[in-house]
Amino acid sequence: MKTIVINTGTEILLGDVLNTHLAFIAREIFQFGLRIDEQRAIPDGDAIQTALADVSSWAEIVFVTGGLGPTSDDITRELVAGYLQLPLVENPIVREAIRSRLAARRIPITKRIWRQALVPAGAEVLPNENGTAPGLYLRTKINPAVPSPHLFLLPGPPRELQPMFRNFVAPVLHRITAELKKDAMRIFRIANMGESIIERKIGDLVFAIPGIELGYCARPGEVDVRIIGSAEAVAQAEKIIREKLSNAIFSASDESLAAVLIRLLSEGGQTLALAESCTGGFLADQITNVPGASKVFVAGYVTYSNEEKIRTLGVSCESIEKFGAVSEQVATEMAEGIRIRTGATHGIATTGVAGPSGGSADKPVGTVFVGLSSENQPARCEKFFFPSDRETFKQLVAQRAFDLLRKRLME
Amino acid sequence: MKTIVINTGTEILLGDVLNTHLAFIAREIFQFGLRIDEQRAIPDGDAIQTALADVSSWAEIVFVTGGLGPTSDDITRELVAGYLQLPLVENPIVREAIRSRLAARRIPITKRIWRQALVPAGAEVLPNENGTAPGLYLRTKINPAVPSPHLFLLPGPPRELQPMFRNFVAPVLHRITAELKKDAMRIFRIANMGESIIERKIGDLVFAIPGIELGYCARPGEVDVRIIGSAEAVAQAEKIIREKLSNAIFSASDESLAAVLIRLLSEGGQTLALAESCTGGFLADQITNVPGASKVFVAGYVTYSNEEKIRTLGVSCESIEKFGAVSEQVATEMAEGIRIRTGATHGIATTGVAGPSGGSADKPVGTVFVGLSSENQPARCEKFFFPSDRETFKQLVAQRAFDLLRKRLME
Repeated sequence: MKTIVINTGTEILLGDVLNTHLAFIAREIFQFGLRIDEQRAIPDGDAIQTALADVSSWAEIVFVTGGLGPTSDDITRELVAGYLQLPLVENPIVREAIRSRLAARRIPITKRIWRQALVPAGAEVLPNENGTAPGLYLRTKINPAVPSPHLFLLPGPPRELQPMFRNFVAPVLHRITAELKKDAMRIFRIANMGESIIERKIGDLVFAIPGIELGYCARPGEVDVRIIGSAEAVAQAEKIIREKLSNAIFSASDESLAAVLIRLLSEGGQTLALAESCTGGFLADQITNVPGASKVFVAGYVTYSNEEKIRTLGVSCESIEKFGAVSEQVATEMAEGIRIRTGATHGIATTGVAGPSGGSADKPVGTVFVGLSSENQPARCEKFFFPSDRETFKQLVAQRAFDLLRKRLME
Repeated sequence: MKTIVINTGTEILLGDVLNTHLAFIAREIFQFGLRIDEQRAIPDGDAIQTALADVSSWAEIVFVTGGLGPTSDDITRELVAGYLQLPLVENPIVREAIRSRLAARRIPITKRIWRQALVPAGAEVLPNENGTAPGLYLRTKINPAVPSPHLFLLPGPPRELQPMFRNFVAPVLHRITAELKKDAMRIFRIANMGESIIERKIGDLVFAIPGIELGYCARPGEVDVRIIGSAEAVAQAEKIIREKLSNAIFSASDESLAAVLIRLLSEGGQTLALAESCTGGFLADQITNVPGASKVFVAGYVTYSNEEKIRTLGVSCESIEKFGAVSEQVATEMAEGIRIRTGATHGIATTGVAGPSGGSADKPVGTVFVGLSSENQPARCEKFFFPSDRETFKQLVAQRAFDLLRKRLME
């Protein structure tokens, strides 16, 4: 079934917000055998009518996001009803849901609010558990006089749209896609190996499997390998990928590298401490984004200044003087220092030149050392070179640092 | 001039990557009097020909991203040339640029690489300083037999597209938009004030100015107020906005709250240290994303465990026992502790329940205390309640914490 997503919102076209709906919806609908064939972003206002007229000849399912709220530029509901030549009828259940939600929050009710209780005749209401504007489902050819696909009108804020999609859109999709063939999909996540090297290892072998679709997606410090096809074809491809890439694969589910690390440490009853210089807290932030991190994460120090490295981590003045703060010696001492000081099983340290300034001929912007210290094991240190903007630099260093420990845990 | 962005790439439609091109291009073209009237994402392959045929009747400028690389699914160049009925001709300058770039990196050259040196007859080459595939500019009606807008073919990776846009697309736009009226735009960024409160303060007054366009964009802990119109109208609106919101506005340029804070501290010759519990390094990460942060940022400790809070920050056991780790008392002691320990001018501390578990009836998930300690000033502590996912929680706390210090610096 041909599927299209239409995002309304002048703020998207002005570049004020990133459109995250597309990625969310794409992932959610795959299980129903659906893919997005096209996506469009259009301004608030009557562009939605033109777009609907335009796509109704070929699209079978259309998701429209945005424009359902109470303010004057929220007119998706009215325009879609107009396009379909359906009258708007006030729905008493929606009206009551809005009233009680606003009363509980002591928000004064203005006249405009009630527009959100209007429903095109024959539409199904998709309850909004995180806001006032409900979503709407209008079945295909709801008005036989007007060509129209299955039409879902969804609220703009992701925190309203996402639970609504999972709780109320999914059951409708389940119903209308019952006849479709469902492909299997697997995504393998690989840290710190280039796309071209991965392609050389597995590309030809996987391509040779009939009916398999193979894709790569490169992110900073990570490549995702995606295979789509029948369950048998995917199983065959998985066997090859696992054989060729073995423990370079850190996840075959959607787990981030930080989450994998937390899980491995947790399973082994081990703990982690961090000493960050150039990554400035990014590693700690990634680790603490994982629910349950507090069980394994003891402490993280961001020691930007030399004094802090010396006083708090016990790095020796001599090492800093002789080798510089950005050096193998200092990275190793930082990792040892944080581990011993906090009593953690493992200590990871980063020191480098994030830029844009601070580089030298010897240690240009992008130079970084990652130290790893573990109980009863020799310390390790690796040197990398990532000349890029500060945020990408931090991401690249984090992937290297986490993978260094992950591999040690799997030894 | 009607402008459209077409993003090619199956990975966008599968939800594997977020489309950041739209926001980037939208911001870059505004200065030329252009806005994006529509954006479409389409799969790799011949969908680009259908889309071009479809939009050529009304669009005057079209930006196409993606599909210019060397792999088998990169066929934008060939399909666009096909649509325009233009022959592809190898460009010797592009060929040489590719050869020398790959030689310098010792990357072996395969046959497919040379496809990137093919140029539709009459197209202008937009050099790629960060990759092999050049961009292409095809002026409107380049082949009089085929209706076509001004057409820019741009590479998919943002780190290639963005500098190419600024250095080589902008001059072309400057030329072809010379006749257009250019609106002025200003964006005011406001922390920790709800959209509806801002609207009540300025909405009617700004709307009353003839020819002004007013928009709001809400993000976690922040609302951007955007005004567009003639220079005079924008100046008039700015006067009202500054009068009504005064120092709730933290930026009228594109500066983030963290960047404003770094600038204010730097101007005052002051320094900052952080003690984070529930925010887990996010504040330090935000601060160190700002180039030059090392001048004012002394150190950040992520003290997740009670022992760390006691040992490293000097929080008293009694306070933790009597009030709990999530309390005004502990937040204040953490802020004082980090400031005194590091000798910084200001110390900020966070302690709270990020969730999803760890809440109690007394302190439910989302409860957080932010402490602020400054040299020669009484310590402050504020309590907030942000029940949301971990990442949003961290963002909301960061905005509150940074704004607390910003306001102190402006007193």
